[in-house]
Amino acid sequence: MRIIRLHILSGRTQDTNLNFIAKNLQSLGIELREVRVVQDHRSTIENTLNALRVQDDYVFTTGGIGPTHDDITAECVAAAFNVELQVHPQARATLAQYYAERDIEFNSSRLRMARIPVGASLIDNPVSAAPGFRMENVFVFAGVPKIMQSMFDNCVAQLKRGMRIRSITVVCDLPEGVLAQPLGHLQGEFEDVDIGCYPGKSGAAGRVSIVLRSRQQAELEQAHQAVRQMVTSLQGTIE
Amino acid sequence: MRIIRLHILSGRTQDTNLNFIAKNLQSLGIELREVRVVQDHRSTIENTLNALRVQDDYVFTTGGIGPTHDDITAECVAAAFNVELQVHPQARATLAQYYAERDIEFNSSRLRMARIPVGASLIDNPVSAAPGFRMENVFVFAGVPKIMQSMFDNCVAQLKRGMRIRSITVVCDLPEGVLAQPLGHLQGEFEDVDIGCYPGKSGAAGRVSIVLRSRQQAELEQAHQAVRQMVTSLQGTIE
Repeated sequence: MRIIRLHILSGRTQDTNLNFIAKNLQSLGIELREVRVVQDHRSTIENTLNALRVQDDYVFTTGGIGPTHDDITAECVAAAFNVELQVHPQARATLAQYYAERDIEFNSSRLRMARIPVGASLIDNPVSAAPGFRMENVFVFAGVPKIMQSMFDNCVAQLKRGMRIRSITVVCDLPEGVLAQPLGHLQGEFEDVDIGCYPGKSGAAGRVSIVLRSRQQAELEQAHQAVRQMVTSLQGTIE
Repeated sequence: MRIIRLHILSGRTQDTNLNFIAKNLQSLGIELREVRVVQDHRSTIENTLNALRVQDDYVFTTGGIGPTHDDITAECVAAAFNVELQVHPQARATLAQYYAERDIEFNSSRLRMARIPVGASLIDNPVSAAPGFRMENVFVFAGVPKIMQSMFDNCVAQLKRGMRIRSITVVCDLPEGVLAQPLGHLQGEFEDVDIGCYPGKSGAAGRVSIVLRSRQQAELEQAHQAVRQMVTSLQGTIE
């Protein structure tokens, strides 16, 4: 199963949506294959969507579905699928009710948020009513993290789960240059386990995380034991 | 001027390299056009590099140049450019000296970090000696933020600067649905200013940031005045 997330660039802020989606897909057994952050330009968004939606099982986009002139995701999705963008009766009704209850004017800018590509199904937004939508294998979410997260949760039932990818992290104080060779051997031994080695933030000798990932529980545990043994015996050598 | 950064996926951690590179490019007047985060697979990295390096002025990669088996960026860059990956004499000498001074064994895993695509120039690493490199328009940096940042700083003199992109942010408490129409008009009026509107994190009515970006100082200031006037008059209407 393959997944790509397309993320509309904000540039100004530290993104947190990627991390949320990555963690949640992992727990669903869905592999996140690629993330792209692109500019708010019509042709760029359209071309990116068209490249990714044929290549991967699912595409998730975040951002660009609000009421302002720079919110162009819905029209880009419609263009990518070559369908019209129309006011969706149910989306309009939901927004109308939301604004009426709060005594807020339902003006033409807010009505823009009811425009949905023809053929798409709505994704509920319990925070601020303006819906996301699903067009074939493309899920279009808001960019505001709280809204994006509830939209994602609302779509989980529609996603085909894979075998869960489990991961185990072994943290140690050995230099990468010492771990490298035995770790490479272990990677050769455990083909169904993906072994990654990540230095700490400082880049000094310090802490190294060895991350084991696999869909095969038994082999993951064997690899874990082997890595722990290897680390223990190396620590004995060094200290 | 166009820029893309290719980022080798770590998945486990909240990325901060993107933010650093984005801010620094902006201050150099270089436009960051796209970010891609991809898996540590040879063909994926190679294809991504080849797509981006013809499309953009510069490509920056982060991560995957350490001593362990999952550090495959250097060999992927060599493959993408169809050149050999060879131990670089200067890189080897730098590493040999670094390890000798610290009484650390310069083993075969550590020697891997001296392998550089033929034709590339080295990028100094003042933190832990293992160099990055520049191959034509592709800059290959370490993934550890502290090292990546010093490598970036070491390359600034090689980058062709553009006219500086300045930005001004106007924060207000008006709902996006109220701002949308007048803001759209202002965007039409100021063609050389890029006007973006971003809701706060909560997604509730709350704070909205209107961000103005331009290389034209005079027009940016005019747009700023116009946005402030618009916000003030709308606030008068609402309160």
